[in-house]
Amino acid sequence: MIELPFAREEYQQRLGKIRAEMAKRGIELLIVNDVANQHYITGYDGWSFYTPQVVLVPIEEVEPVWIGRAMDAAGGLLTAWMKPENVVGFPEDHVQRADRHPMDWIAAWIVAKGWGNRHIGIELEAYYFSPKAHVRLVAGLPNAKWHDADLLVNWIRAVKSSPEIAYLRKASRLAEAAVARAYEVIAPGVRECDAIAAIQAAQIAGSPDFAGDITALPPTILGGENASAPHIMWSDRRFGKDETIALELAGVCRRYAAGLARTMQLGKMPARVADTAKAVIEGMDAVLDTVYPGTTAEAVEAAWRKVIERHGLKKESRIGYSIGVAYPPDWGEHTISLRPGDKTVLQPGNVVHSILGMWMDGWGIEISETILVTETGNETLTKFPRDIHVKS
Amino acid sequence: MIELPFAREEYQQRLGKIRAEMAKRGIELLIVNDVANQHYITGYDGWSFYTPQVVLVPIEEVEPVWIGRAMDAAGGLLTAWMKPENVVGFPEDHVQRADRHPMDWIAAWIVAKGWGNRHIGIELEAYYFSPKAHVRLVAGLPNAKWHDADLLVNWIRAVKSSPEIAYLRKASRLAEAAVARAYEVIAPGVRECDAIAAIQAAQIAGSPDFAGDITALPPTILGGENASAPHIMWSDRRFGKDETIALELAGVCRRYAAGLARTMQLGKMPARVADTAKAVIEGMDAVLDTVYPGTTAEAVEAAWRKVIERHGLKKESRIGYSIGVAYPPDWGEHTISLRPGDKTVLQPGNVVHSILGMWMDGWGIEISETILVTETGNETLTKFPRDIHVKS
Repeated sequence: MIELPFAREEYQQRLGKIRAEMAKRGIELLIVNDVANQHYITGYDGWSFYTPQVVLVPIEEVEPVWIGRAMDAAGGLLTAWMKPENVVGFPEDHVQRADRHPMDWIAAWIVAKGWGNRHIGIELEAYYFSPKAHVRLVAGLPNAKWHDADLLVNWIRAVKSSPEIAYLRKASRLAEAAVARAYEVIAPGVRECDAIAAIQAAQIAGSPDFAGDITALPPTILGGENASAPHIMWSDRRFGKDETIALELAGVCRRYAAGLARTMQLGKMPARVADTAKAVIEGMDAVLDTVYPGTTAEAVEAAWRKVIERHGLKKESRIGYSIGVAYPPDWGEHTISLRPGDKTVLQPGNVVHSILGMWMDGWGIEISETILVTETGNETLTKFPRDIHVKS
Repeated sequence: MIELPFAREEYQQRLGKIRAEMAKRGIELLIVNDVANQHYITGYDGWSFYTPQVVLVPIEEVEPVWIGRAMDAAGGLLTAWMKPENVVGFPEDHVQRADRHPMDWIAAWIVAKGWGNRHIGIELEAYYFSPKAHVRLVAGLPNAKWHDADLLVNWIRAVKSSPEIAYLRKASRLAEAAVARAYEVIAPGVRECDAIAAIQAAQIAGSPDFAGDITALPPTILGGENASAPHIMWSDRRFGKDETIALELAGVCRRYAAGLARTMQLGKMPARVADTAKAVIEGMDAVLDTVYPGTTAEAVEAAWRKVIERHGLKKESRIGYSIGVAYPPDWGEHTISLRPGDKTVLQPGNVVHSILGMWMDGWGIEISETILVTETGNETLTKFPRDIHVKS
């Protein structure tokens, strides 16, 4: 048995909140397809989601059920907190075949359990849940009444408990170490792939006291012309003598992610970079002045926008999002977004990654913080100098 | 512009094969949702698929169209081979919102292009294409006639060209280096996370001549009780004095993945491990004797099964699958599977990762090869001693 990241009471509290929301919406069975949500509820952890995998939460006070590939039920027994009979494997002869689908089997399992005629809430925008899987599930449950349950669990995840915040603090230490390592290894003539190798090694080895985990998004280091494109991967390109490089890195501890973006300058800092950095750092101050319980998400963005407009700058995309349990391909929670129109009222326990990325024509800078909303204001969990790091 | 992995003729040949298959099936527009297929067709490469992203292939001989988030169109201009107007960004205000969906915008774009009343083939089992996205796309294209196009592109990908095989050879070198690194760093008392950090650094840094890429599945090293569970991730657990450890590693070059699994033994090799390894290595010989043009996938598995049954062993799961262009969460191509019932006739240019994983009760061993089907037989692209590596 791998040590659970949390005490059982934590899982019971989560289930209590989920069931209260289910009751409010008239949902008697929740089908959880989002892998991060599955982990949040059960503790299950494995790289097994390339075949279908669901977690079932019945409204009554019984343990949830994990169902995945038979081969991976062994991992369920090692990582999930439920009793062994609540870790269920579908047969190997259902894996990636044209003539049958794991969802046929899962639907039949739900019917056999007596849950086939329930009001079923389901997540329909989970990354590894396909349209075909959904069609097969629905066909196998002809008596179910379906409810859209997208983000039901995510919104509960948006408020973190103290044990969760403790992991986010550890993750923040790893994010800081990753940026520090990037500052060390990136230099003119060094290949991007060698820099990424060193950074990722730091992220994964973690600290002497705890391991690092895979980051949901791989490290991005955007230099040269790539700096205009936020999600380009590395290559064997060598860093130039004079180059502005945006680093978007993370630290992850027991699946909890903290993001930290910083920018470094090789050679001489161009005036446009210095000017933009000044505006962005001032913008971050405005963000931090505005994040407190009772502010809306859109008010935070408005405070930022006011600053950068004064500097003659503009940014189309949102400037932050809720962050927490993270599986690839995304460490955002898809709930709170810091942008116009998002009227979410921030509350203690929310954690947002505010990322001020300015991707200009052929260059760019990024500065971010992972920010906890406290009872009275906020705390930046990531603690690292914000200035552009010049290496000449 | 990032250097394209292939000459334009290679992409034109791929499109020719795809269009021939579209014509055969009466498909006038193909909507490609699978990220690996998108890369195969366009060269587009970025970690941007956590928001919706499609590639459109019209039947007429014009360039395909990439559509993704506006922020990522910059990456499209740097990595895809098409002209700039065929790289299209949907507006930032469509990202992760309850009141609108990127697929609304994409459907409207298709209608505006005059393709709304076509016979449209679509991939419905792609990892990052959700049931909700599909519903919105269909609602926005009321005059389309829909065709199931799952695996249409994947089956074309199953036959590799020489330039693709050249990348798979490079990837195989990196896979071998990753296993060699694992043999070096894993020892009693070493933490799993530190071993993984070193292995992943080797995978990503690559060779002095070319970069390594992210592997679609992270490295798995399964020791101690975890060895019964094939897809468990690492932790800060320390390797024991006597432990059998299964390594499932990969090397990736320009997105082409080669898999290589090996097993190492810390301390004294138990008889059960030695006996099982003997059976598995003999089973691999049977696999390699049976892989040649004209064999069926199921015949390869039958040859393996005959051997291990003679040793009194049994394996439920398939023993291999087609491998090539790989994005997380899977490096398999979902076409050829080496298992009973798969009557695919192997042909020159197929590449399979044959993985003989025996996950027993509390221990396990894995031995694999990435195998190219040649004109006359086969060639193991991965070249590395198969014996269990004992470190005492």
